[in-house]
Amino acid sequence: MSGVCRILGMGPGDPELLTLKAVRLLAEADVVAWFAACGRPGHARVIADGHIPRNAHELRFDYPFTTGVSVEDPRYLAEMGAFYDSCARDLAKELAEGRQVALLCEGDPFLYGSAMYLFDRLSPAYRCEIVPGISGMSGCWSAAHLPMVHGDDVLSVLPATLDEESLAHWLGRGDAHVIMKLGRNFAKVRAALHRSGRDEKAVYVERGTQSGQICLPLDQAPEKAPYFSMVLVPGRKRAR
Amino acid sequence: MSGVCRILGMGPGDPELLTLKAVRLLAEADVVAWFAACGRPGHARVIADGHIPRNAHELRFDYPFTTGVSVEDPRYLAEMGAFYDSCARDLAKELAEGRQVALLCEGDPFLYGSAMYLFDRLSPAYRCEIVPGISGMSGCWSAAHLPMVHGDDVLSVLPATLDEESLAHWLGRGDAHVIMKLGRNFAKVRAALHRSGRDEKAVYVERGTQSGQICLPLDQAPEKAPYFSMVLVPGRKRAR
Ligand SMILES: C[S@@+](CC[C@H](N)C(=O)[O-])C[C@H]1O[C@@H](n2cnc3c(N)ncnc32)[C@H](O)[C@@H]1O
Ligand SMILES: C[S@@+](CC[C@H](N)C(=O)[O-])C[C@H]1O[C@@H](n2cnc3c(N)ncnc32)[C@H](O)[C@@H]1O
Repeated sequence: MSGVCRILGMGPGDPELLTLKAVRLLAEADVVAWFAACGRPGHARVIADGHIPRNAHELRFDYPFTTGVSVEDPRYLAEMGAFYDSCARDLAKELAEGRQVALLCEGDPFLYGSAMYLFDRLSPAYRCEIVPGISGMSGCWSAAHLPMVHGDDVLSVLPATLDEESLAHWLGRGDAHVIMKLGRNFAKVRAALHRSGRDEKAVYVERGTQSGQICLPLDQAPEKAPYFSMVLVPGRKRAR
Repeated sequence: MSGVCRILGMGPGDPELLTLKAVRLLAEADVVAWFAACGRPGHARVIADGHIPRNAHELRFDYPFTTGVSVEDPRYLAEMGAFYDSCARDLAKELAEGRQVALLCEGDPFLYGSAMYLFDRLSPAYRCEIVPGISGMSGCWSAAHLPMVHGDDVLSVLPATLDEESLAHWLGRGDAHVIMKLGRNFAKVRAALHRSGRDEKAVYVERGTQSGQICLPLDQAPEKAPYFSMVLVPGRKRAR
């Protein structure tokens, strides 16, 4: 009997935002796997820390160092593809030997999560189970006390990696907006918010639900935005 | 000392998708409040069932019966406004007397949740705490094993209450789409998906993570959709 690959959402950072189900499946895991940026501790692993079984085998997957190569560059896609192939092979070996695997993911796994690429590779041959997590955006708008999406508001979730033109276009329509993946794209995001007249209602959230959390109106936000940050623009068509 | 109003996300239906934090704060509650449609059990209350303290005081808020009145009608807004005013007064009384209140919400409270209207009324005078929940959409795409939002995909979340023209417009741009609040709007949603050529990739999910869950390609979906159903159209700009 093969093992089951459990893809577990770890939520936005506060370990109390783990679900009962993630905690239970973590406790049953023989193998615990997670992604991390080179040299960094691995955020999903940090959140899960209190719940990893003592004798679980841990597998750390270090992202290849791709800074400088554009995500549009075919070399980027090829390199990431090879990386995910290799991670999937490692997990397949464990599953084939009947071990229960827990793959830890930041936030919700199927919302901009790397685990989707392993799911694509493993699910044709192995049983997979997806446990949703609290998304970063839910964590951030709750932390900011910002009611986000009302009545017949349209919510658009935008990656800050889009060009300024596209960002301004999207921000110009719809009601509520989330802009993720700020980092080095922050200046461009500010410009697009300004162009579309959406900067006044915009809220900046850094490390939502984590220690060191910052929630500020955009015009008081710091110059530089780290990886764990986003901009929220609340909707609200009608008062109630 | 006034009490704190804890607005607690109960997730999409599976009680194991409660967070550790929601469970802890529920256990501390003196008053447990929740919305319900007339004559129905109240979905958030059903999910929380195993965690309500034995001697908590329960407050059920029955939505006024508004079927037939359009949400565009000023009478609808006025009636809902008066209803939320009255719920907020009930909770304010408890908070002023120093009791801890837990307001239970389906999914994530600040994503199309009624609790937002009580937050608006209570937060100027009372301390509020928002605990995010797993959203219905995260529950549904996880249940459907549908990787949803990739790389620089744009995700749009659309209420099915929009007119067919607007729905088709939104479905024609962006990458990933969620259409909520199907119910009596389902035929219109199908038409809009067809017009925008997005019907082939569309997945119908009913009662995601709940007993009686259904996940089907749209063309195999039942004729009628209940309240707890949505359509998911996954994005994916590039293979990896
Ligand atoms: C690759 S995406 C992964 C999203 C994750 N799967 C989720 O559901 O939130 C990473 C982006 O999520 C956002 N993010 C996630 N958690 C966050 C938090 N606690 N505070 C601020 N931003 C967060 C940031 O914009 C970050 O750049
Ligand atoms: C008023 S909205 C509330 C959304 C909730 N606050 C959330 O975060 O999911 C109600 C809509 O959510 C969707 N929904 C919520 N939970 C669901 C589930 N378990 N299965 C299918 N649809 C669900 C349905 O489209 C429903 O009409």
